[in-house]
Amino acid sequence: MKSQNTTIAKDAYKFVYTANEAASEGVTEPKRLPMLIKKTMSLARAPISTYKVGAVGRASSGRVYLGVNVDFPGLPLNQSIHATQFLVTNLALNSEEGLRQLAVGVSTDGIEIGAPCGNCRQFLLEISNAPDIKILSRSKRVEASFTTLKCLFSDRLTPDQVLPKGTPLLLDKRDNYLSLPSPVQGEICSETDCSHLKCRALAAANSSFSPYTDSPSGVALLDNEGNVYRGWYIESVAAIPSLGPVQAALVDFVARGRGKGFDKIVGAVLVEKSIANVRQERTAKMILETIADPNCDFKVFYCKDDLGQKLMTTRFRF
Amino acid sequence: MKSQNTTIAKDAYKFVYTANEAASEGVTEPKRLPMLIKKTMSLARAPISTYKVGAVGRASSGRVYLGVNVDFPGLPLNQSIHATQFLVTNLALNSEEGLRQLAVGVSTDGIEIGAPCGNCRQFLLEISNAPDIKILSRSKRVEASFTTLKCLFSDRLTPDQVLPKGTPLLLDKRDNYLSLPSPVQGEICSETDCSHLKCRALAAANSSFSPYTDSPSGVALLDNEGNVYRGWYIESVAAIPSLGPVQAALVDFVARGRGKGFDKIVGAVLVEKSIANVRQERTAKMILETIADPNCDFKVFYCKDDLGQKLMTTRFRF
Ligand SMILES: [Zn+2]
Ligand SMILES: [Zn+2]
Repeated sequence: MKSQNTTIAKDAYKFVYTANEAASEGVTEPKRLPMLIKKTMSLARAPISTYKVGAVGRASSGRVYLGVNVDFPGLPLNQSIHATQFLVTNLALNSEEGLRQLAVGVSTDGIEIGAPCGNCRQFLLEISNAPDIKILSRSKRVEASFTTLKCLFSDRLTPDQVLPKGTPLLLDKRDNYLSLPSPVQGEICSETDCSHLKCRALAAANSSFSPYTDSPSGVALLDNEGNVYRGWYIESVAAIPSLGPVQAALVDFVARGRGKGFDKIVGAVLVEKSIANVRQERTAKMILETIADPNCDFKVFYCKDDLGQKLMTTRFRF
Repeated sequence: MKSQNTTIAKDAYKFVYTANEAASEGVTEPKRLPMLIKKTMSLARAPISTYKVGAVGRASSGRVYLGVNVDFPGLPLNQSIHATQFLVTNLALNSEEGLRQLAVGVSTDGIEIGAPCGNCRQFLLEISNAPDIKILSRSKRVEASFTTLKCLFSDRLTPDQVLPKGTPLLLDKRDNYLSLPSPVQGEICSETDCSHLKCRALAAANSSFSPYTDSPSGVALLDNEGNVYRGWYIESVAAIPSLGPVQAALVDFVARGRGKGFDKIVGAVLVEKSIANVRQERTAKMILETIADPNCDFKVFYCKDDLGQKLMTTRFRF
């Protein structure tokens, strides 16, 4: 496999690069993240806005990740995924532990380096080292330079203002200890990458980040060739920037689906609690009815929390 | 009526104050906007977050407006309304032309003056003088002082980066020239405050702010006592912070409904285009099915754009 590295690095649909692969694309140091911006923007799926945004970020592991904006004709704009949210979700889905540098490209006339919008600056704060994330500054044909999220977003609302000390943040390890009712739980595989939507959606829900409302959820999607994608609900302390589990699974679909259209999604499973302050079922159904194969099979399984004592008393603000 | 001013000013459910009424509550100058914060926060409807946020703002007319956060058990958090969005929507519904000063109160231990979250900073930018809006600084028992939105939100994505010069912004006058198909249009009253949901929803759609996708929409709601409330879709250049037409009508409902619960909503009409990049119908239905009277009658009317030549070619970014 390693001998194919160069070929893989030039792969038009690639969303995750090792440090070596990124270097072969010109990203030899963080300041050169924009070398991948043009390619990233070409992967955006923004039929409503016609406006393409691309985000390129370097994780603490040294790997380089791409993020693009995605919008859905027929759905309200608050269901859209921003490029920075896409990138952060992609980091979470790949078990990355931190984000070090970020460059965002926007197209007005040509390509310009911008800064994340207000919604994305807020979303980024769920990462534990967020204030120190370096963001490439807007610049026109000037040497690129980094500023920090801290500088771009003063007097901010942060997770640690409401969460108990030591609560794992978005990219920190966590397990929600969710299981399905006994007969169904018995059918859950122990390996982590089986092809059963139910198993993958449950595993996703167990990785969900919902420290503010304790309403974890996960989604698994099946495409027309039998490939499985999954994603989990990510909550924001400011509520509105929260990313739904279908959107998170669509990030996986776009990142690994090699350009496939959403109408190639033929199956979907949502796992969530039947009683929770935040419920995703109706929204998930609405999104899939709008974008997936019209015959897409959508199932919901209600999970339970094995840590009965894990009573969340924290509150969140917005 | 004027002799009752004092009584009205002390009205617990009041969301709009004349300058005199505000003064009688202690808001004798902009720095004293926090005099109304505690009252405002008591009006928040945040059963999910249990976290109350209150916004008090002074319009260019001198009137003082309140905004509260509203969330909806059972719905994803991106359907929530933030206090600052509530206040700005309330300004729009009352034909205000500008926002001068803003104070946001949040409750951690006691009440603290905060700054709007990232989502709300982005939403505020749809107001034409946005960068100069003065925002009361976070402070603990220190003399309050104002900063500007410009200072709180550098390197920002603004409407004028994508809209043609001269496009009316959120609080500027506009008419979308929408009408209903002939037989239905014939039933539309010419007065602006009739009690027909259809007429009020069409009027609302005509005030809708959707310069980025040209997908205007309006909603009218009926309560169990025959009162009518209305609101219109408000779009953000950054897409996600956009506020749906049901939410905008709920702002009117909370602001004028004297504490009534959402389950007292018994009728609703949505007016939108049948073909548009952004469609609200499914979402509106989902929200109302979750929060309104279970027998709430929900109707949708599809409007047409009388300005066929008004082809929108602008794009938006996120
Ligand atoms: Zn964004
Ligand atoms: Zn906010």
